[in-house]
Amino acid sequence: MTDVPETIRVGVLGARGRMGLEVCKAVDAAEDLALVSMIDQGEELFQASDAGAQVLVDFTNPDVVMDNLRWAVDQGISVVVGTSGFTEDRLEQVRGWLAAKPGAGVLIAPNFGIGAILMMQFAARAARYFDSVEIIEQHHPRKLDAPSGTSMHTAKVIAAARAAAGCPPMPDATKEEMAGARGTEIDGVRVHSIRAAGLVAHQEVLFGTSGETLTIRHDSLDRSSFMPGVLLAVRHVLRRPGLTIGLDPLLED
Amino acid sequence: MTDVPETIRVGVLGARGRMGLEVCKAVDAAEDLALVSMIDQGEELFQASDAGAQVLVDFTNPDVVMDNLRWAVDQGISVVVGTSGFTEDRLEQVRGWLAAKPGAGVLIAPNFGIGAILMMQFAARAARYFDSVEIIEQHHPRKLDAPSGTSMHTAKVIAAARAAAGCPPMPDATKEEMAGARGTEIDGVRVHSIRAAGLVAHQEVLFGTSGETLTIRHDSLDRSSFMPGVLLAVRHVLRRPGLTIGLDPLLED
Amino acid sequence: MTDVPETIRVGVLGARGRMGLEVCKAVDAAEDLALVSMIDQGEELFQASDAGAQVLVDFTNPDVVMDNLRWAVDQGISVVVGTSGFTEDRLEQVRGWLAAKPGAGVLIAPNFGIGAILMMQFAARAARYFDSVEIIEQHHPRKLDAPSGTSMHTAKVIAAARAAAGCPPMPDATKEEMAGARGTEIDGVRVHSIRAAGLVAHQEVLFGTSGETLTIRHDSLDRSSFMPGVLLAVRHVLRRPGLTIGLDPLLED
Amino acid sequence: MTDVPETIRVGVLGARGRMGLEVCKAVDAAEDLALVSMIDQGEELFQASDAGAQVLVDFTNPDVVMDNLRWAVDQGISVVVGTSGFTEDRLEQVRGWLAAKPGAGVLIAPNFGIGAILMMQFAARAARYFDSVEIIEQHHPRKLDAPSGTSMHTAKVIAAARAAAGCPPMPDATKEEMAGARGTEIDGVRVHSIRAAGLVAHQEVLFGTSGETLTIRHDSLDRSSFMPGVLLAVRHVLRRPGLTIGLDPLLED
Repeated sequence: MTDVPETIRVGVLGARGRMGLEVCKAVDAAEDLALVSMIDQGEELFQASDAGAQVLVDFTNPDVVMDNLRWAVDQGISVVVGTSGFTEDRLEQVRGWLAAKPGAGVLIAPNFGIGAILMMQFAARAARYFDSVEIIEQHHPRKLDAPSGTSMHTAKVIAAARAAAGCPPMPDATKEEMAGARGTEIDGVRVHSIRAAGLVAHQEVLFGTSGETLTIRHDSLDRSSFMPGVLLAVRHVLRRPGLTIGLDPLLED
Repeated sequence: MTDVPETIRVGVLGARGRMGLEVCKAVDAAEDLALVSMIDQGEELFQASDAGAQVLVDFTNPDVVMDNLRWAVDQGISVVVGTSGFTEDRLEQVRGWLAAKPGAGVLIAPNFGIGAILMMQFAARAARYFDSVEIIEQHHPRKLDAPSGTSMHTAKVIAAARAAAGCPPMPDATKEEMAGARGTEIDGVRVHSIRAAGLVAHQEVLFGTSGETLTIRHDSLDRSSFMPGVLLAVRHVLRRPGLTIGLDPLLED
Repeated sequence: MTDVPETIRVGVLGARGRMGLEVCKAVDAAEDLALVSMIDQGEELFQASDAGAQVLVDFTNPDVVMDNLRWAVDQGISVVVGTSGFTEDRLEQVRGWLAAKPGAGVLIAPNFGIGAILMMQFAARAARYFDSVEIIEQHHPRKLDAPSGTSMHTAKVIAAARAAAGCPPMPDATKEEMAGARGTEIDGVRVHSIRAAGLVAHQEVLFGTSGETLTIRHDSLDRSSFMPGVLLAVRHVLRRPGLTIGLDPLLED
Repeated sequence: MTDVPETIRVGVLGARGRMGLEVCKAVDAAEDLALVSMIDQGEELFQASDAGAQVLVDFTNPDVVMDNLRWAVDQGISVVVGTSGFTEDRLEQVRGWLAAKPGAGVLIAPNFGIGAILMMQFAARAARYFDSVEIIEQHHPRKLDAPSGTSMHTAKVIAAARAAAGCPPMPDATKEEMAGARGTEIDGVRVHSIRAAGLVAHQEVLFGTSGETLTIRHDSLDRSSFMPGVLLAVRHVLRRPGLTIGLDPLLED
């Protein structure tokens, strides 16, 4: 385990984007973190190393994130990445760079919402003990896809847990169904997508068995909800050399 | 308005069926009602008139309910009917019998759940003030049809209220939908049917507009939930000569 | 009924305050309304009359609102008021001014959230039909008072409806209670106040009777949720000469 | 690990009590279990050994359960116990008997509801990641105590997890509180007890942090909900020699 300093010195890449600004505010407000560098498009990365940054947070875009990562790892600076677009090829490249710099750590997460990640972990844990499970996700009406990515991922981890435990198919006597009433099916798990004005991003996982139900519900109201997860990653990445995918490993101890 | 006695004398037809037994218990427990006659298959209707019944409650079956009604109206006895199978033809017949006996009242209701009826009335009232509305109904997995009859009826009253108020179509930017994710559509209102062990009969109507949502939810756990509605009908039918359809008019003052 | 023009010309007082800005945006976005005047502290009211405003919306403060109202009524301009601090004395003064200008209307509302008002109306309607009712209100942890004003008002309208219908006391066998577990009591209705980070402003009214429950829930996420109510008031005030208190009368037809 | 037979032979003590009857039905319906003995007050325990019972399920009462346990352990028969009244003294005695019979296992659980146990485990896991947490428990109005035992236990495990992680006190700016509005406090965790007709047994644990909430809710409708937990215990107790307290260890792998 790398030695963790009292105060972690943090730089933010993409510091003037919507997420970057939130990260700057959150780092600045955290007592154990110091915001030492804010870098955006057209500005030089070495400002971060000059300022002594130990961890960078990257919310930029798929076009520049790989260059940022190569530079940071080369400098021995760890990085928390929220930028999207990581294919298996890209991950392999990052692993290669890290192999040459054993001290540095990179944590790439598709989702920094701790509540959403816990919801998925709990759903996976509960899956084997209930006869039935359905997912109801609710979003604002400007959303383009249905169901949501999170609900599809949740359905898959539930289906995998049920398969591993040898659960039988869920009971369902439906004979007459108007098309779509019973939702869509992801690996055998029914998912229902609600879209309404006034909603933001919500998901409910409903488990049921003889005489009881267990419901896990996550409500996300704004992007500040991702900050606790970003800060958690910043605090852990110095102790996790190499590549870490997702926040799950940080939430499992 | 007919004079209403202090204690109403009640007879039950179909008294040994599941609903009939519940009605007998509920009437017996009500201070302002007296259970004077319990009649089931093979027993004579005139036991009820001999016992001085002023109101009969009929939970029998479509084969015998018309004979029961003709006899009761002929005797000037009012009837609360929970038996199904009433076509417009049958209703016309009952109206004819009642025309000849101006004192008697018949109340025929497809649903005695006061909570469900209020949910529908409130949904109709709220409909015009919100941009979006969707219905989520949840039932035990032995149910054969999806969506439920109540949810379809609710969707229709909402759609009618929105049409009357000139509401524009609901916002929905969905471009990529996995088949069924967005539920089924009843007169333009999306309905989602959940089926899971541990559930009984539940429905949620979700209204949303800029920055707020209003949710009306009904949970029904067992058939005792219909008894307050049956007793309400018994208490009102003596004051309502002629034919009354549904509990709605009793809940509107 | 006063003749209502195709497009209503609207001025906003307190136009640079948080609520005032939201009102300006909302009026500007509405097809049937024209934003003709934005006035804030230190600016002259007659800019509004010069611009031909037919309705003013006042979100200022208790120190200036009475002067604003006297001026507007004197000009024959109708006003929708969201400013607080209206005692019975103040209301009496406003009634006096309006008596002298029969064409003008003033609508003063403590709450423009349509969802919250409907919740209260529905709660009052449902109250008599259920044995039990409790209120659970949930707010962010920066709130100073518990319970919330809305929950207290809801409890009072429920209690009044139950008293008018002659409902018996609610069943409650609690013998051993840790202090506070059963919440506080407003006119015999239990109210529970939840405070947690991540919440905004939410309220649930839970009705229960034998075998069923009916829940009415309101979730308010931001102050944009008041705009539909403000616009509704703007559209109605021209047709309602004299003083109107609250949005209730507008939501009752 | 003891060799587990294909079909486990089960006897039920207290077989004509309410829980005992449910257990008999559940064992009888399970394909991998055989109901070989039903014993109630005044009947001889050795009927169970004569019938070759491998596991006994005891839902009797505190007066006889210790005698039942001593006899069963002496015979080398494992026992699943739902009877209450186990003090630390009693547990010590049982441990003593088991020490002398290394093959036998005894599992004593205060609660066989798998959903409730998972709710508590998840609450303990989530506790450290959120600024705020409150518990809302809802029960029928015939319940004598408030708050419920389950809610108090949940509050304690949450408080312990927060203490272990060094969480600061929860934010709460309440200045003016009507007595009881903010519920009762168990180890620093607020608990609110709702009582209403139509409810059975429900609990909600609400976690909140900046911009998001996570809610875990358990609804229990009847005592059949305990049967999956009883059967799980029956299947595991043969493989767990010695004393096991609660279902938790069975739900953790």
